[in-house]
Amino acid sequence: MSAGQPSIFARIIAGEIPCQRVFENEYLLAFLDIRPLAEGHTLVLPKRAVARFEDLTPEEAAELGRQLAVIARKVVAATAAEGCNILLNNGQVAGQEVPHVHFHIIPRRAGDGLGYRWRPQRRSPEELSALAERIRAMP
Amino acid sequence: MSAGQPSIFARIIAGEIPCQRVFENEYLLAFLDIRPLAEGHTLVLPKRAVARFEDLTPEEAAELGRQLAVIARKVVAATAAEGCNILLNNGQVAGQEVPHVHFHIIPRRAGDGLGYRWRPQRRSPEELSALAERIRAMP
Repeated sequence: MSAGQPSIFARIIAGEIPCQRVFENEYLLAFLDIRPLAEGHTLVLPKRAVARFEDLTPEEAAELGRQLAVIARKVVAATAAEGCNILLNNGQVAGQEVPHVHFHIIPRRAGDGLGYRWRPQRRSPEELSALAERIRAMP
Repeated sequence: MSAGQPSIFARIIAGEIPCQRVFENEYLLAFLDIRPLAEGHTLVLPKRAVARFEDLTPEEAAELGRQLAVIARKVVAATAAEGCNILLNNGQVAGQEVPHVHFHIIPRRAGDGLGYRWRPQRRSPEELSALAERIRAMP
């Protein structure tokens, strides 16, 4: 995040704005989304104000993965859901509304009408092979 | 995953079915989805056959977080996308089609029509507070 006004998440982390806390440690904070897509919709974020996931340190990204598994289990159990989506909107184009990395844990139940818009496309093996090579070659 | 037929991902990991590999180390494999939602749609999975995210070891979940950040950066750069969604469908009810944990990296571009169905609800502070307490109390 560029220098400027602290985001709403920075203010929540600083304790200036209250939240319904689900988990907290030295690196991460998790709290309930106040406009949930489903009962138990939880946000999990690093305390350091970083806009994009790829700009976290490897340790911060690892800690997110580690704690997401634990928090998701508790959220699903406490809300008697059957599963969940874990979603990162990385970049404004991807639906990111606050420029501070945050994962969504969205508990799922049959018939809830939630989910990702799934419109698979066709690609030839040759196209996929050339693309995989291009990705592997990235520094 | 319960004992039984190996899933298609187990067979890909074993090398019985080819894939367009993007990244591989001792613990993880990442390859291109053959029915992509967008150019560069990549799957990232632990090599160990585990159906649900919460059943990974803390180390496996951490390694997923650590490498997701690196792989997502490369996928977005190689496809000249503007951002990405990172998505886990955890459980059949959440859209999980193969019973082996896999994260989707979905590159995003303006006007692509992708994204999560976003229908926020309202909850009172009292409801949220009681729910957060219930989640924190989970073992």
